[in-house]
Amino acid sequence: MVAAGLQVFGQPASTDVARVLTCLFEKNLEFELVRIDTFKKSHKLPEFIKLRDPTGQVTFKHGDKTIVDSRAICRYLCTSFPEDGNKTLYGTGSLERASIEQWLQAESQSFDAPSSELVFQLAFAPHLKDVHPDEARIAENEKKLQNMLGVYDEILSKHKYLAGDEFTLADLSHLPNSHYIVNSSDRGRKLFTAKKHVAKWYEKISSRDSWVQVVKMQKEHPGAFE
Amino acid sequence: MVAAGLQVFGQPASTDVARVLTCLFEKNLEFELVRIDTFKKSHKLPEFIKLRDPTGQVTFKHGDKTIVDSRAICRYLCTSFPEDGNKTLYGTGSLERASIEQWLQAESQSFDAPSSELVFQLAFAPHLKDVHPDEARIAENEKKLQNMLGVYDEILSKHKYLAGDEFTLADLSHLPNSHYIVNSSDRGRKLFTAKKHVAKWYEKISSRDSWVQVVKMQKEHPGAFE
Repeated sequence: MVAAGLQVFGQPASTDVARVLTCLFEKNLEFELVRIDTFKKSHKLPEFIKLRDPTGQVTFKHGDKTIVDSRAICRYLCTSFPEDGNKTLYGTGSLERASIEQWLQAESQSFDAPSSELVFQLAFAPHLKDVHPDEARIAENEKKLQNMLGVYDEILSKHKYLAGDEFTLADLSHLPNSHYIVNSSDRGRKLFTAKKHVAKWYEKISSRDSWVQVVKMQKEHPGAFE
Repeated sequence: MVAAGLQVFGQPASTDVARVLTCLFEKNLEFELVRIDTFKKSHKLPEFIKLRDPTGQVTFKHGDKTIVDSRAICRYLCTSFPEDGNKTLYGTGSLERASIEQWLQAESQSFDAPSSELVFQLAFAPHLKDVHPDEARIAENEKKLQNMLGVYDEILSKHKYLAGDEFTLADLSHLPNSHYIVNSSDRGRKLFTAKKHVAKWYEKISSRDSWVQVVKMQKEHPGAFE
């Protein structure tokens, strides 16, 4: 199948866009990234060199097909282009795929909400005017995440990656939020370094070429951390 | 008239795109910048953080209208939105406009060719693989530009800007190429600093808010000078 005509609409700083870009780089697919920046009247600085919203949407098009959920886009890329790039990203057998699916659902249903809240509170709120980090919400979501990462740590003591000994969508899907938390503050970083196996896992997944490229793209648009 | 629906398609590093963006900032108009970056297979780095082509095209849309020439776009913005932002950018009387027009034509017909060649030879060629700056072409175009800037210097000894005592499209239109040349090398810089009145003029026009914003946008995409 020809990969021509893959288009991503959105900003790399968005965690959903970052998830899709990482998958595209893992699959070594050719694509176009379309970014639209709005410049308002009387703004001294262009909008797009101001703070970026990490909750920005992603839209994906392949010919007539349009998908807007980042995890659904990743699944689609893996099943539509099984022979390109990383061939084991979505598993090779049905058992393996079932395990990856479980993790993808755990990530979107349990990891995403508390980690997104921490991305906002720890990484973005400190840089926003008139917004103050909410200590109660930080503590509450930190607790939730610590509990989850405790479970992850046990599983990661048994194999290198979440769904087995290969890097898969299960791991990839955790990168965008984790990255913002780890790089937000000591407090954020500790969430991922306090547990030995989680720390090793995060070190491995965040140093993959695909993710390193996405971080470079995020840095091109100076955001919260510059 | 409502300025809604102004769209610019292209990369800020392109001199034509930069010309249009500067005009939009001078006119304080709301607009969208649409950038499309192509990511090829097997490229370690995304295409768009590599060297940018300063000769890249610009496309402008306003509702059903499409214009592709950067100077025509600037004229269109000034005549369509006379009451927005800088109201004297394209002159206020017919005599003044005629003088600005003469300069716009001199810039596009006589300044653009030698200065574009120098942008390529001095600013871009040294950073390109397998491309060597061509000393004969540099010397030839440097000579042409020196002669032109000699004439400019005389005129600028009589008034602050090319078409009179106000900054207009006549001056603005010279910014994108001049900037690349000035920042390319000592040799490039000297072309604009050797002549007293030209030096003062360039200093003034290149420190305008509108242009400073465009340079910031160009720097977001690390190009030849990073």
